[in-house]
Amino acid sequence: MAASEATGPNGAAGSGDGLYDVIVLGGGPTGENVADRVHAAGLSAVLVESELVGGECSYWACMPSKALLRPVTARSEARRVPGVDEAVGRPLDPPAVLAHRDAFASYWKDDGQVRWLDSVGVDLVRGHGRLAGPRQVSVDGGRTLTARHAVAVCTGSRPLLPPIPGLAEAEPWVSRNATSAQTVPGRLVIVGGGVVGVEMATAWRALGSSVTLLVRGDGLLPRMEPFAGHLVAESLAEAGVFLRTGVEVREVRREAPGGPVTVVLDAGDEIVADELLMATGRGPRTDDLGLETVGLTPGSWLDVDDSCRVKAVGDGWLYGVGDVNHRALLTHQGKYQARIAGAAIAARARGVPLLETDRWGAHSATADTDAVPQVVFSDPEAAAVGLSAAEAERAGYRIRVVDQDLGAVAGASLYAEGYRGRARIVVDLSREVLLGATFVGPGVGELLHSATIAVAGEVPVERLWHAVPAYPTISEVWLRLLEAYRGD
Amino acid sequence: MAASEATGPNGAAGSGDGLYDVIVLGGGPTGENVADRVHAAGLSAVLVESELVGGECSYWACMPSKALLRPVTARSEARRVPGVDEAVGRPLDPPAVLAHRDAFASYWKDDGQVRWLDSVGVDLVRGHGRLAGPRQVSVDGGRTLTARHAVAVCTGSRPLLPPIPGLAEAEPWVSRNATSAQTVPGRLVIVGGGVVGVEMATAWRALGSSVTLLVRGDGLLPRMEPFAGHLVAESLAEAGVFLRTGVEVREVRREAPGGPVTVVLDAGDEIVADELLMATGRGPRTDDLGLETVGLTPGSWLDVDDSCRVKAVGDGWLYGVGDVNHRALLTHQGKYQARIAGAAIAARARGVPLLETDRWGAHSATADTDAVPQVVFSDPEAAAVGLSAAEAERAGYRIRVVDQDLGAVAGASLYAEGYRGRARIVVDLSREVLLGATFVGPGVGELLHSATIAVAGEVPVERLWHAVPAYPTISEVWLRLLEAYRGD
Repeated sequence: MAASEATGPNGAAGSGDGLYDVIVLGGGPTGENVADRVHAAGLSAVLVESELVGGECSYWACMPSKALLRPVTARSEARRVPGVDEAVGRPLDPPAVLAHRDAFASYWKDDGQVRWLDSVGVDLVRGHGRLAGPRQVSVDGGRTLTARHAVAVCTGSRPLLPPIPGLAEAEPWVSRNATSAQTVPGRLVIVGGGVVGVEMATAWRALGSSVTLLVRGDGLLPRMEPFAGHLVAESLAEAGVFLRTGVEVREVRREAPGGPVTVVLDAGDEIVADELLMATGRGPRTDDLGLETVGLTPGSWLDVDDSCRVKAVGDGWLYGVGDVNHRALLTHQGKYQARIAGAAIAARARGVPLLETDRWGAHSATADTDAVPQVVFSDPEAAAVGLSAAEAERAGYRIRVVDQDLGAVAGASLYAEGYRGRARIVVDLSREVLLGATFVGPGVGELLHSATIAVAGEVPVERLWHAVPAYPTISEVWLRLLEAYRGD
Repeated sequence: MAASEATGPNGAAGSGDGLYDVIVLGGGPTGENVADRVHAAGLSAVLVESELVGGECSYWACMPSKALLRPVTARSEARRVPGVDEAVGRPLDPPAVLAHRDAFASYWKDDGQVRWLDSVGVDLVRGHGRLAGPRQVSVDGGRTLTARHAVAVCTGSRPLLPPIPGLAEAEPWVSRNATSAQTVPGRLVIVGGGVVGVEMATAWRALGSSVTLLVRGDGLLPRMEPFAGHLVAESLAEAGVFLRTGVEVREVRREAPGGPVTVVLDAGDEIVADELLMATGRGPRTDDLGLETVGLTPGSWLDVDDSCRVKAVGDGWLYGVGDVNHRALLTHQGKYQARIAGAAIAARARGVPLLETDRWGAHSATADTDAVPQVVFSDPEAAAVGLSAAEAERAGYRIRVVDQDLGAVAGASLYAEGYRGRARIVVDLSREVLLGATFVGPGVGELLHSATIAVAGEVPVERLWHAVPAYPTISEVWLRLLEAYRGD
């Protein structure tokens, strides 16, 4: 059924004249989940994708980056345990790691994703979709699709390049290049200390590159608690990454394609490298979507309500789901929004009233504001959910911040010799529930979901005392945090 | 202050005539925590210990066993990742692992624990404490201590040896020997397929022993969901452990001390080994505590209420906390009970009414029945909390059981090549909350606490949808489980 439209298997209308209940623009995880959810609710759906079904995450972000990073951490962790450390005699094998990455990026082919779409009964139209007025989408400027109920824009985001002289001409790497490169650059300069910069510095340094990381601010991972960036910076420095904070790039020069690139800093000094990765934030992929045909501004983020419906569009047929609405630029939040938007679209199509007053009901993406989790797969891992202390204060909460040295937890010291890490919870004193939590240290990635359930579940601190961490795991930090909160 | 009694630093009474507010028998983690909690509440406390302060957990259980096991899993995990697998060129280094274990057992010295006791203001009396009537404890048959408010028995449990002819004379290993051995036995027979049997088979096989594991029932880890035992058995077999299920030991012979031991099975066949580890369950350490002086039966488990007070003793001055009450034989549950019993003792001493009707309040160890977590540090790890499907059915709940192949979760497949694992949740259909959860697979140990918070927090399934797992972690299995519960 791929690349054609047809009546859905459950009898929902989808027809040769391009009429569907729901049109989804963009076939990344967000778009796939919107289409799946509305189809499961009995609506016909078509997905329009101009590149690979599966999107950024599958081919150029989550999957390949984690395939590059897991060998780094697995090796580091083995080297931190007596009796194994000496057995890890060789550095990482770059060709093996890159081949592993290629496999996890499905060799940049979307056959598997297309088969999945087919199996769930969603049609696929390949091409560039543009709005052509209310409920209308034209594909590659040709045929027009019409949506009976909704159009969901799930086109995501793209890297934002700052206006630095010579930068565009130097053809810098952006995240896509950094996750899909087939050779290890001898010298790599990375601009930006957020997640992409930190993860790619970790991966390419471990694969053998000489890495310089340039950061405008005073630290890494600026959206997390400050200690996250401190611990990761310390570790990157030990791995041999040259970190420079508080610097701006004034100019970039690449004399010949494929030749060395020169990065000129504000202070005038120059760094020569083989590749330059720009990891300086992302902008919405909405510049060529025909937003102007429905009264919106091309190139802007889509302002949506908690069901992901675009606020400014009359009749409420337009949704913006995933990165494109700027609520939380993470694959898992896009999928979460997709489930909620899909349910909301289906409810409205059936004329069922939405549970809009129920903040934690099926039609409100409340976690986007209250409980967004993120794991940075650096070494150490940095994991956080909900509000940082600074964010909670800015939001006006009366809070208590409780910190714990993770290295003092028995389970952590057993996990790695000389374990270094830290945990923090931010407690709302008026309700005695957690607003946020942060864990930084080896092996904390899977620990985060405990905090995500505590935050999203609004589990009172008094009840958390009855959630006993198994001894001796790293999770026992929960007990230490509660003890510190009590004032031991 | 160690090895003497004195007035506590906060002025609570404790005096040279042996009068204390609270006497604690047994200085493992449970006893330490009871003493700490009552002292923090302003009561004087003395701890009586005949061996090492810190108890079984610190020297012969959790700490040394996990110090033996972490190198095994760290090495296995590195070997499961392309680009690292070839770099792990050598097997485990047994002397390094054993030395590491020695360090984590504090070289079987309790100086650090004694310093801690001292720092929190709890007195220590070394010797064997026995009840000598209500509120009286005699130490080594000599001087007598008197408790104004409570005596807490925290003497724990010991291995139970079945009455097999020749067994005692053969001087088998029990858990203490298996965690503290200084050489690797060439051939090791282990009897018992519970946690101790499984963990020690994992450790000693990886250290080079030829291991035979004999199990009376039809599988391993019988208290967990059946798939836990299946997956661990499969992995042990691949590691070269010879597993025999459905067998009984009829007789044991060791001709000469230090010589080989012969294990005769019911069917008549014999297995010859260098050491025999009996891991066949545990009994209460109450046989020589003077229980008969207060109307109880020596050698029995102590039957306690949810505040850990012994039900059958009038006036309510006697508590049984930790293994000794048979509620949940785990270090972390002992510590949990200790916090609750300590709070209850302090409240009763002040004449404050207990929150006995509040199941999840500060004076009821409700997690003992509803939310006991356990992690088996085998390879793969097996982690469970709350009720198994069979337990929930026996308890009369109307349930739905949802399973998920962990290997199908992106985060798991990135964690290890050919990831094998499984997850299960047991949902109470009347309240739509989780009664239990089980995860089996590499790296799931830290994932358990998410389920522990969900179970103990009674977080409704509808709300769990808003607890978004970070992509791509193994924790994303939560999303798959919820989808399966919904009926996708």
